[in-house]
Amino acid sequence: MSVFSLFGHCPLVQIVATALCHSDFHYLVEFTPKENFPIVLGHEAAGIVESVGPGVTEFQTGDKVIPLYLSQCRECRFCKSPKSNHCENSAPPVPIKAEPDYRYTCKGKNVLQFLGTGTFSEYTVMNQIAVTKIDPAAPLDKVCLLSCGICTGYGAAVNTAKVEPGSTCAVFGLGAVGLAAVMGCYVAGAKRIIAVDINPEKFEKAKVFGATDFINPKDHNKPIHEVLIEMTNGGVDYSLECAGNVGVMRSALESCVKGWGVSVLVGVTNMQDIAARPIQLIAGRTWKGSLFGGFKSKDGVPQMVKAYMDKKVKLDEFITHNMTLDQINDAIELMKHGKCIRCVMSFSPQ
Amino acid sequence: MSVFSLFGHCPLVQIVATALCHSDFHYLVEFTPKENFPIVLGHEAAGIVESVGPGVTEFQTGDKVIPLYLSQCRECRFCKSPKSNHCENSAPPVPIKAEPDYRYTCKGKNVLQFLGTGTFSEYTVMNQIAVTKIDPAAPLDKVCLLSCGICTGYGAAVNTAKVEPGSTCAVFGLGAVGLAAVMGCYVAGAKRIIAVDINPEKFEKAKVFGATDFINPKDHNKPIHEVLIEMTNGGVDYSLECAGNVGVMRSALESCVKGWGVSVLVGVTNMQDIAARPIQLIAGRTWKGSLFGGFKSKDGVPQMVKAYMDKKVKLDEFITHNMTLDQINDAIELMKHGKCIRCVMSFSPQ
Repeated sequence: MSVFSLFGHCPLVQIVATALCHSDFHYLVEFTPKENFPIVLGHEAAGIVESVGPGVTEFQTGDKVIPLYLSQCRECRFCKSPKSNHCENSAPPVPIKAEPDYRYTCKGKNVLQFLGTGTFSEYTVMNQIAVTKIDPAAPLDKVCLLSCGICTGYGAAVNTAKVEPGSTCAVFGLGAVGLAAVMGCYVAGAKRIIAVDINPEKFEKAKVFGATDFINPKDHNKPIHEVLIEMTNGGVDYSLECAGNVGVMRSALESCVKGWGVSVLVGVTNMQDIAARPIQLIAGRTWKGSLFGGFKSKDGVPQMVKAYMDKKVKLDEFITHNMTLDQINDAIELMKHGKCIRCVMSFSPQ
Repeated sequence: MSVFSLFGHCPLVQIVATALCHSDFHYLVEFTPKENFPIVLGHEAAGIVESVGPGVTEFQTGDKVIPLYLSQCRECRFCKSPKSNHCENSAPPVPIKAEPDYRYTCKGKNVLQFLGTGTFSEYTVMNQIAVTKIDPAAPLDKVCLLSCGICTGYGAAVNTAKVEPGSTCAVFGLGAVGLAAVMGCYVAGAKRIIAVDINPEKFEKAKVFGATDFINPKDHNKPIHEVLIEMTNGGVDYSLECAGNVGVMRSALESCVKGWGVSVLVGVTNMQDIAARPIQLIAGRTWKGSLFGGFKSKDGVPQMVKAYMDKKVKLDEFITHNMTLDQINDAIELMKHGKCIRCVMSFSPQ
């Protein structure tokens, strides 16, 4: 396979480590339309700039970088607004299409890049608005996780829900994104963090990230929002749905206290509608969502790398398996059976 | 009919003016369960304290007051929080039940009070947490409107959506609440206010309150959110649903711009679910709602009376009909056919 290195405004990046995120899995296994194949999957990664195309001013060979599936061009109306982390020049999120100029070819055929990054590859080319430079001391096989899932969950708590100190939170779904949301609630100073999952094997890990209470809906014979409302004298202040299930999204909203409860959609699904009774909102609840945890990507990721280096956020604890890229199918199997949090695949020793 | 004047913590109020609100109409005509009859309807009113029961310290005979269907006890956790205008000691909103101690009787039979107020009556007794004292110079046949609908719509824009200067807004449904939402957007400094109604007779009035654009969905052969997205280069910053229709609630959300759009449910209905695709929220939109426009009632209503006296908000323009209470059935007919904004019924000359 060939990767072109001289695209305008694009650095060519040698990927050092890439993790399997549920979005890759979703696209490969669950996503119905198959017209966007062949494609190089992978978007949660870290690497080193190998060379740069014309017009690239902010990167040079040897820079340590993280790919950004949500770009930050700094020029569109979204980038210029402090209220949003969207970027009008980003690759569209769902369904995922490549940029018009194919950067990969294989046996003479054009190959798409998932989310504009396509990191399951030794080298990839991305537009410079979709790459951010990080601390050269950062271990790439750890900080690659900040390229998607961890920022998504952590930021949903800190930036989108804006969890306040002393509050009560519930996190539904304890994959990497949910665990990162638990960590976000903890770092924001929540006094009670209720971790909800139908797989009780996740609870031990949730405790590591700061969860204080653990609920398996299968242990209760009433709707889970009723259980949470009873446990919390009226409902939680913040709930975060990290399971990507519309039924759970409804439960998460209904678990919030009236008056000021905020429920955030973090898990991505778009096959069915979310639904609720209007009174849930009229009674003062807020239903929100965010992409990439509300972080403006180019600014936020280096800050999160710094927070990790300063031991303010955890990353190592998300990694359950270290592999090489040729074991990608093993990683997919582990994810399918809920047996991993994050599998990190390396290409070469750092 | 007898009204008891010596209930503890309750002033007896002589109602001077009361308006017909859509909630009265809804309860009478559309609300299915009929077990909460007989009931004295009416909750949007103003009056004068006639006498007070034991334990009433903040009112005395002659005070001009406004009944509050949403009380403010100042002692519960909601009243103590700046984040909410709920009150744990309020009469439940929907379905409406009276307080346990009946304050009206008729021919020996207990009669309920709608929303704890029951203002279609020359006299009524309310708990002092559900009454607020206002400027004695205020004209009661105008400021009675601040008892419900106008605060609800105005506050939804100002307090709940928190409309910002220079923004673009859409208001769906141009009854009194919707017109008040238009006024709220205008006072908050919105530069463009798109008024949406299937009854174009409402547009002239909407212009009086500050609307700049007028859309009748019947004039378009595509979904109304698509029309609004095209008109506004991507969607409005704020949308307010004042029609009480779950389909319109979805359209209002979908009319918002991604990244920061806020849609507020103002119209009350609870017979069906609201629904939307998760991506609507994940793309950065916020779905909210509020009761009584987010105003803490005892504090907020006197401030709104002052704003009216200072000519910062309009009230007279909402009143299409002045009547007496014995014409209440005419008012109900006018509302049924969309021929009034507000009918104000007086009991005696002020």
